[in-house]
Amino acid sequence: MAKFELLKTLNIELPNQTYPIYFCVNGVRTSELLKRHIVGDKVFIVTDQNVAPHYLEKLILELDSYQCNSLILPGGETHKNQQSLFLIYEELIKKHHSRDTTIIALGGGVIGDLTGFAASTYLRGVPFIQIPTTLLAQVDASVGGKTAINHPLGKNMIGSFYHPTAVIIDFNTLKTLPERDFTAGMAEIIKYAFLEGGVFLSQVEDYLAHKNDLDHAKNLGELIQLSCAVKIDYVIEDEKEKGSRALLNLGHTLGHALESYTNYQRWLHGEAVAIGLYFSAVLSHILGYLPSKYVRSLELLIQQANLVSRIPKDIDLKSLYRLMLSDKKVLNQQLRFILMKEPGQCFIESSVAKEKVEVALIKSIEGEEL
Amino acid sequence: MAKFELLKTLNIELPNQTYPIYFCVNGVRTSELLKRHIVGDKVFIVTDQNVAPHYLEKLILELDSYQCNSLILPGGETHKNQQSLFLIYEELIKKHHSRDTTIIALGGGVIGDLTGFAASTYLRGVPFIQIPTTLLAQVDASVGGKTAINHPLGKNMIGSFYHPTAVIIDFNTLKTLPERDFTAGMAEIIKYAFLEGGVFLSQVEDYLAHKNDLDHAKNLGELIQLSCAVKIDYVIEDEKEKGSRALLNLGHTLGHALESYTNYQRWLHGEAVAIGLYFSAVLSHILGYLPSKYVRSLELLIQQANLVSRIPKDIDLKSLYRLMLSDKKVLNQQLRFILMKEPGQCFIESSVAKEKVEVALIKSIEGEEL
Repeated sequence: MAKFELLKTLNIELPNQTYPIYFCVNGVRTSELLKRHIVGDKVFIVTDQNVAPHYLEKLILELDSYQCNSLILPGGETHKNQQSLFLIYEELIKKHHSRDTTIIALGGGVIGDLTGFAASTYLRGVPFIQIPTTLLAQVDASVGGKTAINHPLGKNMIGSFYHPTAVIIDFNTLKTLPERDFTAGMAEIIKYAFLEGGVFLSQVEDYLAHKNDLDHAKNLGELIQLSCAVKIDYVIEDEKEKGSRALLNLGHTLGHALESYTNYQRWLHGEAVAIGLYFSAVLSHILGYLPSKYVRSLELLIQQANLVSRIPKDIDLKSLYRLMLSDKKVLNQQLRFILMKEPGQCFIESSVAKEKVEVALIKSIEGEEL
Repeated sequence: MAKFELLKTLNIELPNQTYPIYFCVNGVRTSELLKRHIVGDKVFIVTDQNVAPHYLEKLILELDSYQCNSLILPGGETHKNQQSLFLIYEELIKKHHSRDTTIIALGGGVIGDLTGFAASTYLRGVPFIQIPTTLLAQVDASVGGKTAINHPLGKNMIGSFYHPTAVIIDFNTLKTLPERDFTAGMAEIIKYAFLEGGVFLSQVEDYLAHKNDLDHAKNLGELIQLSCAVKIDYVIEDEKEKGSRALLNLGHTLGHALESYTNYQRWLHGEAVAIGLYFSAVLSHILGYLPSKYVRSLELLIQQANLVSRIPKDIDLKSLYRLMLSDKKVLNQQLRFILMKEPGQCFIESSVAKEKVEVALIKSIEGEEL
C-alpha cells in the first residue's frame, strides 16, 4: 500500500478543547491517525459520490475492527441542505449509532460542513473527525469549527460552532481532485494572502507565477500549512466570531450572495469567493481606503489562479444586493463589509452607504474599468 | 393590568455563562423582565395555538418598541419535529432577523425545546429567552439548556446544549393550563422528590395529600422553586451530561419509548414519565436494590397526582424494548438505567440483563402484582 507519512501537526488550543491538525501523505489510506481519535466501537463515514470511489472501500477495510457504516451523498453545494442532513440522522438512528459513535467527514467543504452540523446535533453532539479531500476544505472549511447547511433563502444560515476531534489533511488526495475544484480552492489561499500580506503574500504570488514548475507539489503543501496556521490564529483569538474572526469573511458577503442567487448551482464556493474578493477590493478603493495598484495586483493573482474575478453581465445587481442583506453579518439592517487598506491591513466596516456598494457592484462587472 | 411581582431569582452559574431564572406573577404580561435581556432591536416570539390566545397579543403590545414578529405553531409533541423547526428558520429569514435578534419561547416543553434548538442553530446561535407556561416546562424543560426535536424513530434524537439568556417563570400562567397538562407536570416533580428524598419528598407527599386545600397555590410555587433548585444543582455540576446529570433521566428511558411507540400522540411527556418512574422502581426492586415499600409509596404518589402508573395491556412489550434500545443513554448496545436504592439514593446502572428488564416490564403492566 501507499506509504503513510506524517509531516507535521498543528494544534488548535481553545478554552474547552484542544485538537490536532495532521498534515500527511496517504493518511486517508490508513487507520493509523483515525484510531487515535475514535472513541467507541462504532464509526459512521459520510462522503459523496465523487470521493467515495477513490477512498471509501479502502478506509472501511482499514476500520474492520469497528462497526463501520457509511453514507454516500450526491456531490455539490446544492446538497448541503435539510434533506441530506436528515438522511444522515436517519441512517445513524437506523444503524443504532449512540453517543459512543465517531462520525467521519470524508470529502470537501460541503461534506465537512454538513457532517459537522449533523455530528453537533445528533444526540446533542457526538465526536467527529474531518478528512478534507479538497484544497478548499484543507485550507479553510475543515479548520475552525464552523458547521452549517444552506437554506434556500441564504447560505450557511443554519449551523453551529462545533469542533472536530481531529483534522487529517492528506496532501495526496489533491491528486485525484478535479482541476476545477483545485482552482476554486486557490481563492481561499489568495484571501489569506491578502489578509496576511508580507512574506505569505509573496509566497502565494511566487507560487501562482511558477505553478507549473517541478516543486509545485512541495510548495503547495507549504501554502496549505501556512493558510491553516493563519486561520488557526484567528480561530484561537475569537472562536465564536464576536470580533476579529469576521475578517476571514473577506470576499464572502458578495460570494455567498452569488451562490444563493444561482441556487448554489453555477459556481463552486471558491469561484464565488474570487469574485467577492475582487469586489471587496473595488469597494475598498471607492471608499478611499485601498490604492488602485492593490486592486490590480489582486485581480492579477485571481487570473493567474485561472479564476474569474468579475460579476457576469447577466446577473441582476438589485437582486444581488437584496441577497447580501440576508447575510449573517448584517446588524440593524446595516451591511457590514470586510475592507482592505493594503495587504495585511483589513478591517470591518459597519455601515457602508448603499450607493457606494452599488457603484462597486457596477465596477465589478466584467469589462468595466476601475 | 394585572400587577407584576418578582418573587425570587435563582442564577445558573456555568463556566461560560450565567443566567437568571425569575419566579414571578404576571411576568408574561409585562416587558419589564424581558427588556433586561433583549439585546438588539428585533424580537421573534414562537408559541402555540393553545398559549397564543392567552398571552401573545398583550406581549406584542408590550414589545412595541421592537420589530416584533411571531409564529404560532399547532400544539403538542407531534409538532416538535423537522417541519416546525424549518418553519421557524424560514420565518426568521423572511423577516430579516439577523444575529442581533432575540428569540422568545412562549409555551410548554415542546415550544421551549424546539425554539431553543432553532435559536442554537439559526446563524450558528442567537440569544433566546424561555417563558415556560406549563408546569412541566417550569420545573424541568425550560431549565438546563437541553434543546431538541424528535425524530420519527426516537425522542429528542436531534438537539443541542444551549442555554437561554433568561427564564421567566410566571406562576399565574398555570391558572390557564388545562388540567391534563397540569397533572402531567406533577410527574417531573415526583421525579425530583425521589431523586432528592428527605424533606423535599415529604413536602411533595404533603402537597399531593392536601392538594385541594386553600394554600395550594402558595405551596405549589414553593415546589416549583425547589424543583428548579434541584435541577440547577445537577446542571451546574455536569452541564453536558457526562455523568451525574443523567440521573435526571429517572423514568425517562421507558417514558421516551412509550411516547415514541405511540408517535407522541397518546401520552403527554409527563404522563409517559409517570409510567417510566413506576417501571424504574419495579426494576430497581427486581434487581434487589429497592425495598418494595418504596415501590408502593411511589405508586401512591403517582396515583394521588391523578396520573397512571402502569403500562396499558395493549402495548407490545417486545416493540417497547426495541424502542428503548434507541435511547440516547445506550452505550455499546447496553441499556443504561437510572435505578433507586431508596428515595435520595439513585444511581446509573450500565448493564442490566435483558431478562430482568422483561420481567420488570411485565410486572409494570396494569393489574400485575409486584
